[in-house]
Amino acid sequence: MSFKLIKKDKDTKARCGVLSTAHGDTKTPVFMPVGTQATVKTLSNEDLLRSGTDIILCNAYHLYLRPGEEIIKKAGGLHQFCGWKGPILTDSGGFQIFSLATLMKASDKGVGFSSHLDGSKHFLTPEDVIRLQRSFGSDIMMPLDECVHYPCSKERAADSLRLTTKWAQRSKKEHGLNARQLLFGIIQGSTYPDLRREGIEKLLEIGFDGYAIGGVSVGEPADLIYEIVDNATEYMPEDKPRYLMGVGTPADIFEAVSMGIDMFDCVIPTRNGRSGTAFTEEGKLVLRNREFSSDFEPIDRECKCYTCANHYRAYIRHLFNTDEILGLKLVSLHNIHFYAKLMDNIRTAIKTGRFKTFKEKFLKNYNS
Amino acid sequence: MSFKLIKKDKDTKARCGVLSTAHGDTKTPVFMPVGTQATVKTLSNEDLLRSGTDIILCNAYHLYLRPGEEIIKKAGGLHQFCGWKGPILTDSGGFQIFSLATLMKASDKGVGFSSHLDGSKHFLTPEDVIRLQRSFGSDIMMPLDECVHYPCSKERAADSLRLTTKWAQRSKKEHGLNARQLLFGIIQGSTYPDLRREGIEKLLEIGFDGYAIGGVSVGEPADLIYEIVDNATEYMPEDKPRYLMGVGTPADIFEAVSMGIDMFDCVIPTRNGRSGTAFTEEGKLVLRNREFSSDFEPIDRECKCYTCANHYRAYIRHLFNTDEILGLKLVSLHNIHFYAKLMDNIRTAIKTGRFKTFKEKFLKNYNS
Repeated sequence: MSFKLIKKDKDTKARCGVLSTAHGDTKTPVFMPVGTQATVKTLSNEDLLRSGTDIILCNAYHLYLRPGEEIIKKAGGLHQFCGWKGPILTDSGGFQIFSLATLMKASDKGVGFSSHLDGSKHFLTPEDVIRLQRSFGSDIMMPLDECVHYPCSKERAADSLRLTTKWAQRSKKEHGLNARQLLFGIIQGSTYPDLRREGIEKLLEIGFDGYAIGGVSVGEPADLIYEIVDNATEYMPEDKPRYLMGVGTPADIFEAVSMGIDMFDCVIPTRNGRSGTAFTEEGKLVLRNREFSSDFEPIDRECKCYTCANHYRAYIRHLFNTDEILGLKLVSLHNIHFYAKLMDNIRTAIKTGRFKTFKEKFLKNYNS
Repeated sequence: MSFKLIKKDKDTKARCGVLSTAHGDTKTPVFMPVGTQATVKTLSNEDLLRSGTDIILCNAYHLYLRPGEEIIKKAGGLHQFCGWKGPILTDSGGFQIFSLATLMKASDKGVGFSSHLDGSKHFLTPEDVIRLQRSFGSDIMMPLDECVHYPCSKERAADSLRLTTKWAQRSKKEHGLNARQLLFGIIQGSTYPDLRREGIEKLLEIGFDGYAIGGVSVGEPADLIYEIVDNATEYMPEDKPRYLMGVGTPADIFEAVSMGIDMFDCVIPTRNGRSGTAFTEEGKLVLRNREFSSDFEPIDRECKCYTCANHYRAYIRHLFNTDEILGLKLVSLHNIHFYAKLMDNIRTAIKTGRFKTFKEKFLKNYNS
């Protein structure tokens, strides 16, 4: 059993659990900072640990291109390569191949594409992608999937779902009885509830260690994301972790947790951090703004992160104003800490039966 | 007494001492990392402390332009503004005005210039520069000086020295009896030994808390720098700290320490760090190079810095290859640690009478 459900909320579909991996346990609901290239941008592993992060996400597509499978294999795996000792989930890169790479051509056999870096031609089968993640030693692997854009016709979405399902079967077969590395299934089906349901049922027949909702946050309105998620969790098994890929804002996370989601990843805290936008319980602060140039308060008085314990908004504004790299790190660090603390508060609220109240209070104060 | 001489080397002019400031003591010879804009590029204050740094340098010219005197004053000074609790030396920015700013015009009264950032026009008197550093609360202030380029005619150098001397007198007068902030004098005189000597004698008449050799490393060959320094220290008082501005490489530091220099600052460790070049006792490693892509050794096995304790060369090479900011920080951190450790070893060698041997051994192994 890699997942243990600890508590179900009485008012919503929210739940608390523990996900066990070869590199340690993670309490859910959890937010996974994005370390696409085996580094969560601007942050050291020590920064991550001190901000309350216990699991990170890396991207198999990016790491396949650079540094490449051989180098990570020689290092003894991704953990050894980047020095992160906790769990690592690797995204297969399906989404990245279909959004970043060019000249992409998907067939039953696999996907051919040109690298977004140098145009070099590549072909990956679902089996290749599993083998790649086996070399990486990922704690949680994601299978190759096809990710359609929004809007997408039902016919196209159904065709794509069939392909993703076939690839899922082959991924599972290639994965075999490897118990050290978990393999999740990815639910596609665009914005069509019946296709999403069909997708889930097929994946359940194959059997995975967890189930992810993919192909959301690809341009559709927020309401539609919530509809897809709320519908999908109705059919997702209770005893397996549920992962909503690429989402989201604090408000998105509250909604999705209410709908029974356990795992999240998103570039929002780090990307915002690098542009000087900090998260607080009242909303976002654009620290580049002149209004902060003489503001001798920390980003958030209550926050316990290194940045808030040591620096004023005025100093951080100065760092951004003078293009100093330290600014990018200080705000990224604060934002990752904010997300980790938010998830911690969400878990506590679920455990103590106060989730609905906590959510309402947070969203009322939070100016998004 | 702000400076205490502890030990003089028997073989060279090298010496050990302790420099006391309002924000703590610093053992000399010391290397001061450069934090031009109130941040040592890429590093947090915690990184600096853990790398063995106890004093940093900031630049009054840059901080006058951004964030400006008012904001730093409102913060309660530079220490409060940037959160660094140890000693801070502020360079007056004379060198920067004469190298970065445009439309510069120096007169008896002061210096008029256009900002290198936006072309805005400014005029600073020697008194302004002292008042600025008073607002900053710098532990060590430097007076406004004129810095000539290399090569420079003797006539021009003599004229310039007269101006710098006048400005030094006025700076001292403006500084008054302020014992909390030390004021150093800057020796100019280009490459002319008699002018340098004249400069020193004039500064001694005025009386400063320390003496700096300025106007070196402005394009002249290394041999000539050493000649200037060796000549200058002959006339610099024994009981005051001696600071060689803007120098240098590890080899430069060994030479200058041999000549009796106590304090150094230079962008070399941080600038090299940001380009992926790491210092080791065997010389520099250009970590961007392909040869390091599968090198699973730390930068330096013996090094105790965070980078060497946690990461391989192959990972750092990957970070530079993928333009990841963490790489810039990891190598900068290592280099600052390398310089701090080097100074520590130099101090120990002087104290134990082994400096000459230590210098010879280091320079023999070091491939510069």
